[in-house]
Amino acid sequence: MPVFTEESSPEMLQRAAGLKKPPLPRVSSPAPVNVDRTADGAKHEVVIIGTGPAGIMLSLMLARYGVSCLPVEKVTSMIIPGQADGLQPRTLEVLRTLGLSEEVFSQGFPNHRMAFWNPGGPGEPRIVRTAVTDDVTVPTRYPHKVLLAAGRVVNILERQMNKYGNEVERGTEFLKYEFVGGEFPVRVFLRDVVTGREYSVFTKYLVGADGAHSKVREQMGVKLQGESTDYIWGVVDAVLKTDFPDIRKRCAIHSDAASIMAIPREMIEDQQYMTRLYTQLEDVVDATSTVANAASEQEAKARARERRQRVTLPRILDQVKKTMAPYDVEVVKVDWWAAYQIGQRVATKFAVQDSEGADRVFIMGDACHTHSPKAGQGMNVSMMDAFNLGWKLAFELLGLAPKGSLLPTYEFERRDIAEQLIAFDNAFASKFSQKMGDDGLSHEDFFKVFHTGCGFTSGCGIEYEQSSLVEKTLVKALDNSLNPDFGLLRSGRRLINIPVRRFSDDAPCEFHDVLPASGHYVVLVLLPKLFKDPRVQQQLTYLTSTLPQKFARGILEPFIIHPLRSNDDVEWNMFPKALKEDWEWNLLGDVSGQGYETFGVDRDAGVVAVLRPDGVLGGVWDIDELAPKRRVESYLAANLSARGTKSLL
Amino acid sequence: MPVFTEESSPEMLQRAAGLKKPPLPRVSSPAPVNVDRTADGAKHEVVIIGTGPAGIMLSLMLARYGVSCLPVEKVTSMIIPGQADGLQPRTLEVLRTLGLSEEVFSQGFPNHRMAFWNPGGPGEPRIVRTAVTDDVTVPTRYPHKVLLAAGRVVNILERQMNKYGNEVERGTEFLKYEFVGGEFPVRVFLRDVVTGREYSVFTKYLVGADGAHSKVREQMGVKLQGESTDYIWGVVDAVLKTDFPDIRKRCAIHSDAASIMAIPREMIEDQQYMTRLYTQLEDVVDATSTVANAASEQEAKARARERRQRVTLPRILDQVKKTMAPYDVEVVKVDWWAAYQIGQRVATKFAVQDSEGADRVFIMGDACHTHSPKAGQGMNVSMMDAFNLGWKLAFELLGLAPKGSLLPTYEFERRDIAEQLIAFDNAFASKFSQKMGDDGLSHEDFFKVFHTGCGFTSGCGIEYEQSSLVEKTLVKALDNSLNPDFGLLRSGRRLINIPVRRFSDDAPCEFHDVLPASGHYVVLVLLPKLFKDPRVQQQLTYLTSTLPQKFARGILEPFIIHPLRSNDDVEWNMFPKALKEDWEWNLLGDVSGQGYETFGVDRDAGVVAVLRPDGVLGGVWDIDELAPKRRVESYLAANLSARGTKSLL
Repeated sequence: MPVFTEESSPEMLQRAAGLKKPPLPRVSSPAPVNVDRTADGAKHEVVIIGTGPAGIMLSLMLARYGVSCLPVEKVTSMIIPGQADGLQPRTLEVLRTLGLSEEVFSQGFPNHRMAFWNPGGPGEPRIVRTAVTDDVTVPTRYPHKVLLAAGRVVNILERQMNKYGNEVERGTEFLKYEFVGGEFPVRVFLRDVVTGREYSVFTKYLVGADGAHSKVREQMGVKLQGESTDYIWGVVDAVLKTDFPDIRKRCAIHSDAASIMAIPREMIEDQQYMTRLYTQLEDVVDATSTVANAASEQEAKARARERRQRVTLPRILDQVKKTMAPYDVEVVKVDWWAAYQIGQRVATKFAVQDSEGADRVFIMGDACHTHSPKAGQGMNVSMMDAFNLGWKLAFELLGLAPKGSLLPTYEFERRDIAEQLIAFDNAFASKFSQKMGDDGLSHEDFFKVFHTGCGFTSGCGIEYEQSSLVEKTLVKALDNSLNPDFGLLRSGRRLINIPVRRFSDDAPCEFHDVLPASGHYVVLVLLPKLFKDPRVQQQLTYLTSTLPQKFARGILEPFIIHPLRSNDDVEWNMFPKALKEDWEWNLLGDVSGQGYETFGVDRDAGVVAVLRPDGVLGGVWDIDELAPKRRVESYLAANLSARGTKSLL
Repeated sequence: MPVFTEESSPEMLQRAAGLKKPPLPRVSSPAPVNVDRTADGAKHEVVIIGTGPAGIMLSLMLARYGVSCLPVEKVTSMIIPGQADGLQPRTLEVLRTLGLSEEVFSQGFPNHRMAFWNPGGPGEPRIVRTAVTDDVTVPTRYPHKVLLAAGRVVNILERQMNKYGNEVERGTEFLKYEFVGGEFPVRVFLRDVVTGREYSVFTKYLVGADGAHSKVREQMGVKLQGESTDYIWGVVDAVLKTDFPDIRKRCAIHSDAASIMAIPREMIEDQQYMTRLYTQLEDVVDATSTVANAASEQEAKARARERRQRVTLPRILDQVKKTMAPYDVEVVKVDWWAAYQIGQRVATKFAVQDSEGADRVFIMGDACHTHSPKAGQGMNVSMMDAFNLGWKLAFELLGLAPKGSLLPTYEFERRDIAEQLIAFDNAFASKFSQKMGDDGLSHEDFFKVFHTGCGFTSGCGIEYEQSSLVEKTLVKALDNSLNPDFGLLRSGRRLINIPVRRFSDDAPCEFHDVLPASGHYVVLVLLPKLFKDPRVQQQLTYLTSTLPQKFARGILEPFIIHPLRSNDDVEWNMFPKALKEDWEWNLLGDVSGQGYETFGVDRDAGVVAVLRPDGVLGGVWDIDELAPKRRVESYLAANLSARGTKSLL
């Protein structure tokens, strides 16, 4: 257009790199400033040992929230030769809130379907397809997995963390820690693996994300409890040429020879797509000489060691070919292979306390739980450990929560999940390792374990128990007969996504996408049909004007959903003025009707809920609880510092 | 998992930054190598002047395709204080194929709805809402616009170009060019604006993307044809506080005072969303003293100049408040403002030839066409000019197309679009500048211009005319009664997206997303129901084995869609073996039935089509044309070099 006069603001010229989410407000004393963050005596609010999926997720969360943190990694290169390869639907939902899902999708492979292959009957081929099913059967924003090497997932998170101003200190080894008291009561001894320099830094919290052989866990004096089994498996990532028709679906193959789990993987070069194959190894276990029937622990260990040495790449590939016959499997390129023994173990504790009883040292991820890889859980449960711990550490450090209130809930919530994980894995892995017919195992049994496990394995069905952060009460306005895996607003579970239509611009949106990703609490109201009722209007005024002022500025956001079938039937003047003035984007219409239905909410009654910063429902109540001194307020007051409180930290 | 043996390939450890699309194959001589690309006498395959939306899009395309190119920009900073702000649905489709849509979505504001406000009747407020409608009414992958400052859009494209190894030379001014003959026949004179150094480089093609006052165009001796009008407008980007209820929708406001177009814009700081307001200015034009009734050209120019000087920011804001009354509009922050006069002009030529008759110098974008900004076309038509020229330049330079065959189609196709743009803009802008009631203008008239224009303005309805690249024939298997804006496989138009289900992994996909973004041609077959028929099988063998071998390796990809309602009814062995072996990802199921319906394809007959690298249908034929020497092959042979041809370039 032919412009003849023009003037720009100075900021306009600098708005290029995209916006970052603002940090959480800080009401505690400022973060320590170090000229050199790895100098002897440097101070950090948090030190994280290990930057696999759990460590990098925690470092990223803390960087986004505005907490000072030193992530250290023993390995000197940026690369983690990851074994894990699967991102589950709930992990994808979380990555989406962090603005990372698109990069994961563009690099990874989405897996939608699972095929079951079993021994053929008389006159049939050696293996036959018995069933094909959706891989994910519970409602979720993304009804599929994404397969992508853990190393690449970690890199995606690390690049975002770099944008938020933090970096990993590589080539840095953890030696030990000790409690020293004071403002930074944990002294952490580190070593530069290149120069050999040893030094120590001081921190408020130390987190071990240093894997199955965690040195932090060892220092904590915490043990893994559980057992190894006799099942020996090989795993290989390879580019294959094959006439097996389902090679791009996840396949559970039980043949007369052995069992295989085949997983379609991402592209590694142009048009070179990998397949991951987990294969049981015949003949490696001898029934007369198992670990279980060994005379002594020493003998058991010796037997296990001897067996492991028999696992080689050619042997794995031979087994694959034998199991998948009559189909041809030609290996074009092997990217990675490994051998492992199935074992399920959980740490007895996830945190230890200083002499004053405050949680100071934590472990996450593989340092807390080890199990078989076939249900694709490791990377996911690890990242979710960090996602759970991240905001709790931040709220504690920033003075946003009553002192000491949040951190004990980390072990309480995540150890329970780890135990459920181990129980599921035990059932799934052993059924997978058995031959069809053994101990009466049928395809139907196996299929059932797979299906009923989907709530848990997808990460969408996990539920935290009653605590200060999860208030469970009977809500009259909810249809409690619903299966919470498939719907229902249920305290302790993540909020299920619903499609909504935002009121201010009448844009169709996914509810998950409009929720804040900045660590805020959300008070969510699903309005009753007659929301012009003066009592409801009073509740809304309280929600939009009074309640947010009780806590740190911006830490609480109201979201309001109306039940009408079109935004055209709604006008701003049907609501308190503060709603348009302060929360213009937070009024949404359930115009499809799906939301109230999915959540099981009675349209005549409405409901109120509080969402924690991790997207988990902290409480769900009848709408009358949205009033001064009632339960919404008391839940929040128990978990958030009152505005104006001078932090004692 | 407890691994005891593990081995990784070396490549695995370096697969971090995500994969790039491979370049197009090169059968011509290698690209010139310069030690210093801005040295006097340096050689480049293409030189691009200007890196606004058109210039940066062309630079990016050439970098992706593997062509050597020097993009230069007069401005020294990375920042372009862009006026343009709207990305139309077709532009978003193209950005999606380049893997850039998510970044655009995350920074920009999606605009779904448009509201029409008109003078209120007796007893009504001064302005009242007359209608609310979808902003985009034609089928498209993204049924909305995205609003984002041009400078930020350009930065997103530039960052991807950097990943593909090219960079913009900033602070470099174009002086002139001359034809010198030889292998690099265009000599381009440049000046470093910082040091003042003048030098020249040699190139095969020079492209002017240097805006409305293009120096390249001036040097070509090409004029803009068209006229200015008397309508003077002001435009302002501001953060507003207002009780106007539709401020987050696009609004066309006709009041008794003047007209306003309000456009909801992106967030510029946390929770600070801008609005763009185009406002007509009352009193600036005096009916007795217009440009049109001036006695001489000199007087007309003087009147125009005098009028422009009367446009100031306070005046614009006053006009906004007056027009939008009775609603309050408080300006929180002004980000940018400008004043302009509406004029519509098109360059007489888009390319000039050297003495041998070969197209050597091109112009794109604002250098070719200027018009009013209100239909949000400028940035889009400019980027699509570049998207049209990019692959044609690449195919010519890489020796992939018969010499001189493609380049003349650039002006042929894009000048026609520019003229349609000017015609639409003329109708829309003048109706917008008029008051309701003037010349009998009614809300219904205006609404109709808006609606019928959506095919064009969305970019989804544009259609190129018959040429060597667009073969138009009557296809018996198509329902030609369909409106091609809403469906139909129509030669010269972009392929409409349809949902499909990929066969190999049974994943639901959008067809646009699975098409290659690497500059390949696609031969698309929609199979007839009885595709086991030996004649169809023969056609498929020809398609998957014979045809691709006639042209440069990898330049042609077959895609096959079957009409069955479930992939479960299909097996690989129903197709020639080459399909699974070589094109495993390219068999898709139209399981919703929507594809054949949308495209108007008879399920009993099937159809074959060729998609050009820019996603435009080059030809659509009855399926029998898919055979040796028939029309599919002759279309391709006319536009692609035969394999093994030694390029003469």
